[in-house]
Amino acid sequence: MSELVLTTFDWVPELPRGFVRDLRVRWALEEAQLPYTVESVPFGERSAEHFAHQPFGQVPWLRDGDISIFETGAIILHIGELSERLLPREPKLRSQAIEWLFAALNSVEMASLPWGLFHFWGKTGDTAFPQFESFLKASRLKHMETVLAGGEWLAGSFSVADILMADVLRLVDRFGGLVEYPACSTYLALATSRPAFKKAYADQMAHFARGDAARNAG
Amino acid sequence: MSELVLTTFDWVPELPRGFVRDLRVRWALEEAQLPYTVESVPFGERSAEHFAHQPFGQVPWLRDGDISIFETGAIILHIGELSERLLPREPKLRSQAIEWLFAALNSVEMASLPWGLFHFWGKTGDTAFPQFESFLKASRLKHMETVLAGGEWLAGSFSVADILMADVLRLVDRFGGLVEYPACSTYLALATSRPAFKKAYADQMAHFARGDAARNAG
Repeated sequence: MSELVLTTFDWVPELPRGFVRDLRVRWALEEAQLPYTVESVPFGERSAEHFAHQPFGQVPWLRDGDISIFETGAIILHIGELSERLLPREPKLRSQAIEWLFAALNSVEMASLPWGLFHFWGKTGDTAFPQFESFLKASRLKHMETVLAGGEWLAGSFSVADILMADVLRLVDRFGGLVEYPACSTYLALATSRPAFKKAYADQMAHFARGDAARNAG
Repeated sequence: MSELVLTTFDWVPELPRGFVRDLRVRWALEEAQLPYTVESVPFGERSAEHFAHQPFGQVPWLRDGDISIFETGAIILHIGELSERLLPREPKLRSQAIEWLFAALNSVEMASLPWGLFHFWGKTGDTAFPQFESFLKASRLKHMETVLAGGEWLAGSFSVADILMADVLRLVDRFGGLVEYPACSTYLALATSRPAFKKAYADQMAHFARGDAARNAG
């Protein structure tokens, strides 16, 4: 197997720490028990080489031999292909894990991210906010509550889908959005109590703390 | 190969016609030249069976033998697995098509859908709107413009990624958002001039027109 190299920023401001998307990749790699190294690119000045790996100038990307992959969803799916621990090989369960992986990103996060941006930007007083909140709650979380009340993980056993769904729900929880959804809250607590999540989270925080130290020394 | 059955609504209001997500699936199936049939579920009253296939009560879903798949991204990826016409088998190109498929949904649509909702809901006067517009334009379309100026399709030849990216850009174009992005506009025009898109679009419009006729007769 080729060496896996995860690239993230060298530093980010306090606010997004613990939520930078390399966390999803670290978590998946820890769950899959695949060895990897972490490299950094400057948060400040983004080079042409950075854009060659990530066309929107964001992070993360993952190198696996001569393949370089951007988009967290694509990276997580790739890690699933490398490890049965995260993506079942049985066709029905595999299909279920993949459809829920997309649901986490394209149904739930599609509603939760704009809702979160209203919070980040201090715009929850805007007249559009109640419609965005209803998009998240009535059209998404209400149904996730039914699904998650019915079983522990989204595709039988813990999978790529749960990494993405749990991390998406973390942002909702950060702004108090899960209060009315006990099954979602229980699911999130269970997912984030996993040792692989805890290690990924601690590693991201330590990585950016080293970035602080380098800045202060510089 | 099993029979492929696409399920969509029997009818929708005028506004979303031509943009209901079964279009993406129809387009992919037409490009792949795979035979399929179309079934309908009521737009009005959504049954427990509907939710069993699509947990958010939306459409579409695709049945392939005993597997039923929801989430357009997952369905399109599945169709790609069935047809090399839409998903190259060479590992680097395959990876490129999959990362761009996710980019269409999770980077571009993540910004374009909220922007579109402000338009749909008549809320572009809200104070949050300029920030959402900048999220779409400065953080996404500006970079897509660079990418699309460099080549015809996202992964060498036309692929699953182009179906999703083009359909995402259609919504932006509907509200005049591509005016400053000539490469995005040219890409969209090229994608939607393909016979498979035209057939998919005409078939969706005819499907909902039959829904009108059934309502009027009912």
